[in-house]
Amino acid sequence: MKAEIFSIGSELTWGKNLDTNAQWLSQRLAENGIFVAFHTTVSDDMDDMIRSLAIACQRTDFVILTGGLGPTLDDLTREAVAKVMGVSLELDPDSLATIEGMFTRRGRTMPERNRVQAMFPKGTRPIPNPCGTAPGIFAEHDGALIACLPGVPSEMKEMFAQSVLPEALRRFGGGKAYVSRTIRCYGAGESAIEEMLGDLTRRGRQPEVGITASEATISLRIFAEGTTPEEARAKADVDASEIYAKLGKLIYGEEDETLQAVVVRLLTQRKQTVATAESCTGGLVGNLITDIPGSSDVYPGGIVSYSNAAKNKFLGVPNELLETVGAVSPEVASAMATGARKVFGADYGLGITGIAGPGGGTETKPVGLVYIALAHADGVEVTQYNWSSSRTSTKLRSAKAALQLLRQQLAAQ
Amino acid sequence: MKAEIFSIGSELTWGKNLDTNAQWLSQRLAENGIFVAFHTTVSDDMDDMIRSLAIACQRTDFVILTGGLGPTLDDLTREAVAKVMGVSLELDPDSLATIEGMFTRRGRTMPERNRVQAMFPKGTRPIPNPCGTAPGIFAEHDGALIACLPGVPSEMKEMFAQSVLPEALRRFGGGKAYVSRTIRCYGAGESAIEEMLGDLTRRGRQPEVGITASEATISLRIFAEGTTPEEARAKADVDASEIYAKLGKLIYGEEDETLQAVVVRLLTQRKQTVATAESCTGGLVGNLITDIPGSSDVYPGGIVSYSNAAKNKFLGVPNELLETVGAVSPEVASAMATGARKVFGADYGLGITGIAGPGGGTETKPVGLVYIALAHADGVEVTQYNWSSSRTSTKLRSAKAALQLLRQQLAAQ
Repeated sequence: MKAEIFSIGSELTWGKNLDTNAQWLSQRLAENGIFVAFHTTVSDDMDDMIRSLAIACQRTDFVILTGGLGPTLDDLTREAVAKVMGVSLELDPDSLATIEGMFTRRGRTMPERNRVQAMFPKGTRPIPNPCGTAPGIFAEHDGALIACLPGVPSEMKEMFAQSVLPEALRRFGGGKAYVSRTIRCYGAGESAIEEMLGDLTRRGRQPEVGITASEATISLRIFAEGTTPEEARAKADVDASEIYAKLGKLIYGEEDETLQAVVVRLLTQRKQTVATAESCTGGLVGNLITDIPGSSDVYPGGIVSYSNAAKNKFLGVPNELLETVGAVSPEVASAMATGARKVFGADYGLGITGIAGPGGGTETKPVGLVYIALAHADGVEVTQYNWSSSRTSTKLRSAKAALQLLRQQLAAQ
Repeated sequence: MKAEIFSIGSELTWGKNLDTNAQWLSQRLAENGIFVAFHTTVSDDMDDMIRSLAIACQRTDFVILTGGLGPTLDDLTREAVAKVMGVSLELDPDSLATIEGMFTRRGRTMPERNRVQAMFPKGTRPIPNPCGTAPGIFAEHDGALIACLPGVPSEMKEMFAQSVLPEALRRFGGGKAYVSRTIRCYGAGESAIEEMLGDLTRRGRQPEVGITASEATISLRIFAEGTTPEEARAKADVDASEIYAKLGKLIYGEEDETLQAVVVRLLTQRKQTVATAESCTGGLVGNLITDIPGSSDVYPGGIVSYSNAAKNKFLGVPNELLETVGAVSPEVASAMATGARKVFGADYGLGITGIAGPGGGTETKPVGLVYIALAHADGVEVTQYNWSSSRTSTKLRSAKAALQLLRQQLAAQ
């Protein structure tokens, strides 16, 4: 059983609006065990709509169409559905009375052009719209159920919940339940993680384990199927345990929790604080930490020591050190981290120095070389990174690496 | 001439991620006069991909495909394109050398499975990827040009601009010429700007002037049509002059130039520097400035003074002031800006203090209240803002407001 989400509107194909309806519908269908195989978006063109809708009905069992039900000339959905089905449009007196009633209750007369919203392809059924004038349409074609809903998100969501989902579950809800669980990692590449996971990510395996990468963060999505939600959950949990055993401290969180949110949560639980000394990241670590509500309890602040003078003046990095080993060195990273910890009176200090590029690299210190130091009560450790990415990506990778070092230190306690 | 945007990935059809790539590509194609008739999204299923891609090639002239080029088993794009074309996959030694080189520069050995990223359907060409391991693919099938790009937005955008758009304009640019000019503003809302522009934004007018808002930055896109590029350019320039006359100092730049890039450019031209003192923005202003290559010449650094102690210790904000008027006050913003200018020996100092929320607000100092001060040789000015947005959005709006104040000061010189 496959479903297709079908969105109508040139504002989507021109990129003026983002299709958040398709995402919302996909999530609701996934939760209810209905597999969405396709999203299709078509501009306000009758021929393209007819052809694409026919393809959708042919390749799937359930098409949820949004948009094109308004009263204006570019609202083509009613006519397109009628043409795909090879039937005419007919006035539904009940729907007309409902639409007229809505205008009357607002103290207005129904404009003549709204009458078109009571026209339905012959043999189809209206879907009631409790929040607006446009009723939806349940139609059948080529073995598929078509549900047409308005594009206005509030109306679409209400009608989906009240009428479309119950109908879909009646038809397609063959007693299966699905559970998804997402595990987030930082510190290794996509292919390295896939190698560590071995057979878990094999295609066709059940539960399915998918890997996606975004700005060096790797996400593992476990998608388990069962006859009950409990059974699906139990299967997902078995795989999750295996992933935790294999990836260990690379894992920083689950679902939508960010690295910075985990760091702030762990610091809060331990009643500890961190201060930052940022050179090449230019304030990004502080920015990420302070994105989290409540971070003021664990983050007294930081120094953006973009110049050598600032490294010396605010963090106490010795000028001799800056002159002999240079600002981009493990020694200076250590001195920055130790200095930040001391001058802010924090439990931890993070020091980050490197060459973000595109200029400034040398043979011995190439663009992408970054040292990150973590100072704590028992000393300081420095890690070297060699990124080969754009300036902003190198900054982001470095900031995340710093947060991950701190998180690992906190988690090990 | 029609184009189709084709996105691959179960994380999209399951509704886990929103397809922002499709919107971004649609916008770029629209700006360049290429009509997008369809968006299609397919889950990671080989048969569905093959059938949908064949439909796309049959009904359009240009298919831009994103996703499925990673090194893992669920990355099916290479194989799907080969199957649609009825050809085999072949190793491209040059691409392999490039991928191996990327790993070598990071001090790592290429995992064996990344080798698959150098495999191409016979008769296709690689699209260079300057930011990641996965090269793209230019292919031809059924009269259509197919451009396959990675799903990672930063890589996709760079490769589209460098390789795909020039090729598309060469092939599909014929007959009419389109010129798009985008003017960027900060400091007024979308509807206020629409009122200031009057008839310019009327629907159906030529050239078309569109308004879009993103994180309080307003963009005006002039889209002019002509028989030659020169004619279209001249029409766009007439409208641009009118927009400059009407919006004046709200305008900070054009095309993709960011506020921070303009600030760094103006400071560089004037051989001047700025230092930051950030409380509620937590390092974001420093982060934005240091996103720009060459910023080290104009930005000695900043203090993220998230605590009162840091405001006093590093910026010299008097403790009495913090106790009497409170950290979120015009007086403290001024003292922070003046302090930053002094301790860093900079020409300008920016001081930002406010309540980002969601907690911490009071009746007299509600969430969203932010003071931004700009200190310069002749004194210091403070501006009050009252945002009503989320924590991260308030941070971003405040950071942009600070950069805009500095830009206006620099531009007025």
